[in-house]
Amino acid sequence: MSEEVFKNKKIRKLLEKYAEIWALGYASSLLSWDLDTYMPRGAVEERGKAKATLNLLRQKLYLSTEFKELFKEAEKEEGLNDYEKGVIRVVKRTLEYFEKIPPELIKEEAITVSKARVVWERAKEKSDFSMFKPHLEKIVDIQRRKAEYLLKDKEGTLYDALLDLYEEGLTHKDVDRVFGEIKEPLTKLFRKILDSDMYPRSHPLEEEKYDIEAMRHLNILVLEYFGYDFNRGRLDESAHPFTIEMGIDDVRITTWYHGKDFRRSLGAVAHEFGHALYEMQIDKRLAGTPIATGVSMGVHESQSRFWENIVWRSREFVETFIRDMRALLPFLRNYSSEDVYKYFAMVRPEYIRVEADEVHYPLHIILRYEIEKDMLEEKLSIDELPQVWNEKMQSYIGITPRKDSEGVLQDVHWSIGAIGYFPTYALGSILSAQFLRKYEEDCGPISEAIRERRFDKISEWQKEKIHRWGSTYPPKELVKKATGEDINPRYFLEYLEKKYLKGG
Amino acid sequence: MSEEVFKNKKIRKLLEKYAEIWALGYASSLLSWDLDTYMPRGAVEERGKAKATLNLLRQKLYLSTEFKELFKEAEKEEGLNDYEKGVIRVVKRTLEYFEKIPPELIKEEAITVSKARVVWERAKEKSDFSMFKPHLEKIVDIQRRKAEYLLKDKEGTLYDALLDLYEEGLTHKDVDRVFGEIKEPLTKLFRKILDSDMYPRSHPLEEEKYDIEAMRHLNILVLEYFGYDFNRGRLDESAHPFTIEMGIDDVRITTWYHGKDFRRSLGAVAHEFGHALYEMQIDKRLAGTPIATGVSMGVHESQSRFWENIVWRSREFVETFIRDMRALLPFLRNYSSEDVYKYFAMVRPEYIRVEADEVHYPLHIILRYEIEKDMLEEKLSIDELPQVWNEKMQSYIGITPRKDSEGVLQDVHWSIGAIGYFPTYALGSILSAQFLRKYEEDCGPISEAIRERRFDKISEWQKEKIHRWGSTYPPKELVKKATGEDINPRYFLEYLEKKYLKGG
Repeated sequence: MSEEVFKNKKIRKLLEKYAEIWALGYASSLLSWDLDTYMPRGAVEERGKAKATLNLLRQKLYLSTEFKELFKEAEKEEGLNDYEKGVIRVVKRTLEYFEKIPPELIKEEAITVSKARVVWERAKEKSDFSMFKPHLEKIVDIQRRKAEYLLKDKEGTLYDALLDLYEEGLTHKDVDRVFGEIKEPLTKLFRKILDSDMYPRSHPLEEEKYDIEAMRHLNILVLEYFGYDFNRGRLDESAHPFTIEMGIDDVRITTWYHGKDFRRSLGAVAHEFGHALYEMQIDKRLAGTPIATGVSMGVHESQSRFWENIVWRSREFVETFIRDMRALLPFLRNYSSEDVYKYFAMVRPEYIRVEADEVHYPLHIILRYEIEKDMLEEKLSIDELPQVWNEKMQSYIGITPRKDSEGVLQDVHWSIGAIGYFPTYALGSILSAQFLRKYEEDCGPISEAIRERRFDKISEWQKEKIHRWGSTYPPKELVKKATGEDINPRYFLEYLEKKYLKGG
Repeated sequence: MSEEVFKNKKIRKLLEKYAEIWALGYASSLLSWDLDTYMPRGAVEERGKAKATLNLLRQKLYLSTEFKELFKEAEKEEGLNDYEKGVIRVVKRTLEYFEKIPPELIKEEAITVSKARVVWERAKEKSDFSMFKPHLEKIVDIQRRKAEYLLKDKEGTLYDALLDLYEEGLTHKDVDRVFGEIKEPLTKLFRKILDSDMYPRSHPLEEEKYDIEAMRHLNILVLEYFGYDFNRGRLDESAHPFTIEMGIDDVRITTWYHGKDFRRSLGAVAHEFGHALYEMQIDKRLAGTPIATGVSMGVHESQSRFWENIVWRSREFVETFIRDMRALLPFLRNYSSEDVYKYFAMVRPEYIRVEADEVHYPLHIILRYEIEKDMLEEKLSIDELPQVWNEKMQSYIGITPRKDSEGVLQDVHWSIGAIGYFPTYALGSILSAQFLRKYEEDCGPISEAIRERRFDKISEWQKEKIHRWGSTYPPKELVKKATGEDINPRYFLEYLEKKYLKGG
């Protein structure tokens, strides 16, 4: 059978002990999946207690003398292979986090965000930023203190400390460089595409109603062709689409059904498939270890964006699937495959980030990045937020939100304390194009693979270059190994120009 | 708000620590529910690992110095109230179990039964007892050793030690007394009913096909009338119907759909509802504690049997629901409500226990009880099992299995090491009639409550007398408190005679 990758005895002992931590994470994932799919509503409070208790227990096991001793022993070992080094690196990161942040701060954060999230929801409903303001102030204060703890024995700014939690090794300098390279070109490109009228700003298909059962069948059909392993996964429905993995053999996705505007349901499926494929294609020999999961938010997002934007939102996808789509969604008989493609690839300024097309999506992210960094560094007061938001929105995207619910209040992230998370979304888009370039260099035009429904060609390449490694290498190293260079936003701009200005 | 029931500080400290153990049990339940409903099949092995690891961790927390110290402190306290005493009693039982059984034996048992279960399934398929025999021998040996450990510092026989695991405080003397009182009368009564031809031995409705979606609606409708709280529960589908509680706010049931013979689907729902109601009506102030669950298998089964046999399998139930049933199952328009009642209440000898009517069901149990006791006490060799089984079957029920799959191989229990479990099934039937008698003394004829769909009258009585206490009192004490006497099988015989000989 397959060769064991963990040969070092100390590492093996560490991993044996880690099994408990793994099982707690496994259970915690299932609790989350169930919460968002089938859980009876009255169970929500009790579920919260169970989940919080399991997470605390997980942390306690991490910080137990026994586990720390095993880690110290393993860390001293020499001649470790890459997988083993990966284990040390990932465990070290988590240990450092738990050791640096005082438990009281974690508790304070948990209490603050659980209140803030509820208030944010109400504030968004009422479009009243002043309701949310005092909570956001507390959250920023907590994140600042957290960052200070994290910076102990470490270089970097407060923002770097938070960024690193979501994207290992990424600094604000990296982000400034990358965003600096795309901000202006992207703003111009977006304007140019809008002016060219090559892509519509609205489409009659947005209003076409579909049968939900038929839509479910179409989703499953596409997933089957993409190569989703239903023996190790499921497709369910939830308020917001998501992917979650219990373990390497149980990776589930969800989508949503609005009853019309079918690209929203299918596009979510393509997106979540990309996340799921990453988790499903990790080397099985890593199962149950700390490195058996996608390495970072940015790399993960690059995989979902790849399948959503590059594969699914392509002319070739539509052309090769139009007959299947018409069989299940009969109203498509009134539309050409070019109509459907243009519907998938509409370009228009959006107030809401999650509704944005692939062209100007990163501008939403740049806006948030600039704001949250200034907010954390006290260069921007919370009071100014709505106004600054709206000004930047006008300047980068060309529209001004009419109310805070479609402006500064639209995202959940700050309310749950996630500052430093946003940049990974744009990195995902940028990396997806960089991976595409390398894929085409290695395997030829992706358009052909899509036209021939040879999705296995794509997934095999991704498995080999990215997926199978799990978290063995830090994200920057993985990108370099896979593409031969550091993160380079040029390919993203080229990809968009080709697709949206030169007709694909 | 409601008054706190746990006032003692030492008890509170113990319960605080217990939260971790509770959360692990909560997660483990969800893992089980998911396994039997929605889990992708390829995840089964990994799920097994996760579940086993969580259960070991749970045991470790129980046996941790910290928890044991807290328990010892709490145990010394005087003037505890009934709930607090219940906590001490239940924790003490579990601690004793874990402390008495060596971990190696638990491991040996786990390995043995996981193999044996698979072999049993194949043996049953092939109806070949000899395949299963060596595994059963090992299992009996393990159970014997386990019983020996459990008997340390304790009175009783080997069988008593195992029995107590499923039904606290019950001894083989109790079972001998109770089964002694019903064995002959029940055998005679069963014959008499069969000879009387008042209840059919087969029914055309067994062959009527139903629409599964409509059947699902009927199940939900009946559950709504019974008072099942869908805000804290769900109805799903599984290979075998079951009830499982995550916590007090999340109690789920399943049923099955065969496409015909609809009483099997609805009867399962009534049965599982009885189990679920018990868990849902436990005093909310006990949530998250060791006593927030039904006290024993026998008492639990009495509640499911109550709703299945006494409520659902009644003429009044059919009469009052016949219109609803006809609306969803149109073929019922060709049958009178008396036809349907007789279909629900058919009486005929069955090879298979789980298919047996309520009259002769306990005879199946007595047979198993006699055999497993003799087997454990080495009065019966494993070789003799099939023959002894068949002889007893002929003698008690009047039929001889044609093959082992419908005889000695039919039940899963022994293959998973559950010896001492069976008696609780018959206790359930017996207790259900005893509770009925007391209910009618307190609230008047149950037939009226059913006819008026006043199921709340029944569930309120059960809540007050049985459910709300959880495991506060040991089962024998609870029965005495609720009915004023010890377990008394007379009522069960009277109930059956009235229903099946005097026409109900």
